[in-house]
Amino acid sequence: MSIKKLFAETFLAWMNGETASQSDIVISSRVRLARNLSDIAFPHLLNQESGQKFMQLIYEAWQKSEFKELKQMELVTFENLSALDRKILVEKHLISPNHAQSTAFYQGLLVKPDGSLAVMINEEDHLRIQCFLPGLQLEEAYRRAQEIDDALEKELDFAFDDRRGYLTSCPTNIGTGMRASLMLHLPAITISGQSGHIFQNLNQLGLTVRGIYGEGTEAIGNFFQLSNQITLGQSEEDINASLTTISQQVIEQERMLRKSLREQMKYQLEDRIGRAYGILTHARLISSNEALTLLSDVRLGVDMGMIPRISPNALNELVVDIRPAHLQKKAGSDMDAVSRDAKRAEVIREKLQTGEEGS
Amino acid sequence: MSIKKLFAETFLAWMNGETASQSDIVISSRVRLARNLSDIAFPHLLNQESGQKFMQLIYEAWQKSEFKELKQMELVTFENLSALDRKILVEKHLISPNHAQSTAFYQGLLVKPDGSLAVMINEEDHLRIQCFLPGLQLEEAYRRAQEIDDALEKELDFAFDDRRGYLTSCPTNIGTGMRASLMLHLPAITISGQSGHIFQNLNQLGLTVRGIYGEGTEAIGNFFQLSNQITLGQSEEDINASLTTISQQVIEQERMLRKSLREQMKYQLEDRIGRAYGILTHARLISSNEALTLLSDVRLGVDMGMIPRISPNALNELVVDIRPAHLQKKAGSDMDAVSRDAKRAEVIREKLQTGEEGS
Repeated sequence: MSIKKLFAETFLAWMNGETASQSDIVISSRVRLARNLSDIAFPHLLNQESGQKFMQLIYEAWQKSEFKELKQMELVTFENLSALDRKILVEKHLISPNHAQSTAFYQGLLVKPDGSLAVMINEEDHLRIQCFLPGLQLEEAYRRAQEIDDALEKELDFAFDDRRGYLTSCPTNIGTGMRASLMLHLPAITISGQSGHIFQNLNQLGLTVRGIYGEGTEAIGNFFQLSNQITLGQSEEDINASLTTISQQVIEQERMLRKSLREQMKYQLEDRIGRAYGILTHARLISSNEALTLLSDVRLGVDMGMIPRISPNALNELVVDIRPAHLQKKAGSDMDAVSRDAKRAEVIREKLQTGEEGS
Repeated sequence: MSIKKLFAETFLAWMNGETASQSDIVISSRVRLARNLSDIAFPHLLNQESGQKFMQLIYEAWQKSEFKELKQMELVTFENLSALDRKILVEKHLISPNHAQSTAFYQGLLVKPDGSLAVMINEEDHLRIQCFLPGLQLEEAYRRAQEIDDALEKELDFAFDDRRGYLTSCPTNIGTGMRASLMLHLPAITISGQSGHIFQNLNQLGLTVRGIYGEGTEAIGNFFQLSNQITLGQSEEDINASLTTISQQVIEQERMLRKSLREQMKYQLEDRIGRAYGILTHARLISSNEALTLLSDVRLGVDMGMIPRISPNALNELVVDIRPAHLQKKAGSDMDAVSRDAKRAEVIREKLQTGEEGS
């Protein structure tokens, strides 16, 4: 898989929801490690000269490393990348919206073409090493991110303080520099009106709940990102174990509520799911938010065996396929809002047809 | 066709929209003539004795008549008819909701089993002779109603005043005793927000605009009943000619607006129609009003060639099939609102599948 495919196609490692643990509810696991180099200004203070020096160090570390997965990664810098392609990376969750604003030669991405590993270069920190995997597997995600971390650390001098741990641009990341997060699909918790109560508890347990595109975004389509708040004073393993345990309780709650919805409002649920499927397969114009909301219902229907099985991979891909940059990439041209809504409806109709198993 | 079929099946002569004139927009033409017998109390004053006398006269007239279509009609009186069956007749537009309240032996219906001819017995007037036909054919409807009128008048003494014409219970019917009406499907006029303006003009031209179930009912699903207000001082032919001419202008306006909708909001229209079809074929619970609204959109889509052709007869039948009494008749039992909504969704799904031509 070459990096060209990363821009041209949708499927990424984390979308492979066929076999991973709990992947009907846990869409993906992500671990990211924030790292900074000693003796180089933090990203927001970089200029031409220090940027040049920084990139030289990164390039050499990448080239020198013997570690196989790092060698499989490719380096993209943003001065070579169109605004549309940078948005494509955002929609694939590989870089942040802020990061995508840049066109500097010293900002960019080291990425494995299957999207499982990515290092954001000069976002808020010098390096943000990320691993994304399908289903609930934070330990594995951490293990693989750490391997990249180790491989880079062999060649680079990371800013590290014996008492405080890794130093980061923002104090909330100091220590492990780790943020672990899970993307959960929780329709039954939402439908039964339990989300406020449950998410409040999660906050009290030290977890942050966010929408599908991270900080400050809404939870559309009942997708919620759960992540740790604390990075200091706990080991990475403890953070992951705690997030995993708490999430398992949330997953259990979601399963229980699905069961009771089936028992108490079977007709209403089948109706909601049927209508969502009917609209998605027949609409000619559809907004991104409406599509996500309806896809959530369809996914619930598939998971509950209430409609013909559509492959979870197809549904995972659709969530990214329907975003504006992916639509424009597919259409090969800029599009106004109405044209995007029309293209989105088309993409959904086609994908639901081909994604239907046994059809 | 026996009268049993009238209760067990949906299809009636006026639903045959395949070939009748303008039947894509004019669902049906109806003419009714109000007649009363001399020397018998008006319906609201009838008692056991006068009711008996009245029914004797009607029964004899019916039996004695040599007129073929009158001989093909069957007599049903309400003391023998369940409340459900009386509602079935209302939903088929053969009797009025008020009429259906009665269980008197002297109230009932003389009806041709294909539903094209019906005489309401002791509704507001002693006799209300009605003819229903598909499409725009008021003259023909009048001709056939008049034939029944003539056949009955040979045997019965109708209350008639040389100066005022036929005498009726309500003074607004005096004269011809005729009400001519057309059921029009006018989605484009509604969608483009012109209905208020157009219907106000129709009122000024002496027409009444009503919903699908007559006086005091809402216009659901963009079905509108247009009828003459005046029964006195104009001949039946003049009334019909005037209603026909004015309706042709409304039809023309509807066609023009469909054309401009297609030109100016093709996507939006296709989307609306596609969604309506998607919901109707996938919902598991649906209310009568929502179903009518969506069926109106689907019908518009079929008429405009935007979705696969569904036979207009199937769509006409569905409008009646989804009413509560028809659903309960089909289910063979009383149903609560949720069960009716579920049955309705099932009936619609099946009918749209079998009604799709070439499927």
